[in-house]
Amino acid sequence: MKTRERIIMSMIHLLEVQGYSATGLAEINAASQTPKGSLYFHFPGGKVEIAQAAIRVAAERTAQKLKTALAHRDLGVAIAAYVGMVAEDLRASEFCRGCPVANVAAELAASQEDLRQACEQAYFLWFGLLEQRLAQAGIVSSQAKVWANLILSAVEGALLLSRTYRSTEPLDLLARQLPEILPVGVNP
Amino acid sequence: MKTRERIIMSMIHLLEVQGYSATGLAEINAASQTPKGSLYFHFPGGKVEIAQAAIRVAAERTAQKLKTALAHRDLGVAIAAYVGMVAEDLRASEFCRGCPVANVAAELAASQEDLRQACEQAYFLWFGLLEQRLAQAGIVSSQAKVWANLILSAVEGALLLSRTYRSTEPLDLLARQLPEILPVGVNP
Repeated sequence: MKTRERIIMSMIHLLEVQGYSATGLAEINAASQTPKGSLYFHFPGGKVEIAQAAIRVAAERTAQKLKTALAHRDLGVAIAAYVGMVAEDLRASEFCRGCPVANVAAELAASQEDLRQACEQAYFLWFGLLEQRLAQAGIVSSQAKVWANLILSAVEGALLLSRTYRSTEPLDLLARQLPEILPVGVNP
Repeated sequence: MKTRERIIMSMIHLLEVQGYSATGLAEINAASQTPKGSLYFHFPGGKVEIAQAAIRVAAERTAQKLKTALAHRDLGVAIAAYVGMVAEDLRASEFCRGCPVANVAAELAASQEDLRQACEQAYFLWFGLLEQRLAQAGIVSSQAKVWANLILSAVEGALLLSRTYRSTEPLDLLARQLPEILPVGVNP
């Protein structure tokens, strides 16, 4: 892995586990096994710029997994697969890794405009994929928007609850419930 | 306001706006207009203990507002009032104040067991109120649990999205949608 990539991957991990403010440059150096100078060589803007890049890469990585889940032909199965994927990632990390976007948004949406925008772009990306998939299932556009909003909000919230409880129950309940309550699409 | 109370109120505000790690003791002193010594006099455990107390008080404060919203006779109106209250608080703070519990949970659920437990207790308290209100409306107990989980998750997630977008649209959509999709209670 190239240095720049290693720095980004380490930052994603640190944002997932402990967020932005708790993460110092020395820790990013140590985690990415890079000398101090290379952080500023690759990211002249320092920690903010590293976090921006990390959010962009994490958003794209999640979008790819989301696309895979949503490729299921049955809409209910697709949505359950998405929620199940989030629960599985949380379990695999022994409840350490939250959503890096949510963690940064929680800390910095009010104070760091560049990072707020990076988080917004990430949410827009995921929202768009959900909305498109719902529309594809024949749900009218105004309703696709409303349901994409509910699904994304509920998953981000349930991930936070699950991490806090050290149990995937909130996500598991959601994975079973959402397919049951989704509106049935009407093909025109 | 007494010193201890002033410290707690200042900490709640700082947790809402910027979270735990970004908040230093000097900032708590300044915000609460207390001399340095009084933080350790009132909270020998330092920042962790102040945050624990702040989460407890914030959880109780939100629980009171939640109870008021849920007192509406119509279940849909009650749930919409709860979501509307969260949106109103966010707007009133010009999108600065998030949920202090969510902010602390996002940063520290993985590393600070005392604060993880404080956040868990807060969520349990709010979840219990929602579950009870749904059961009161005649929804069977297994379904009341599932819907309380969806409502709490969706509101926490939509608050995060709304704060990130600097727009209450995610919460507003939820306030309109939830009353429409809630199961109708069957009185035995």
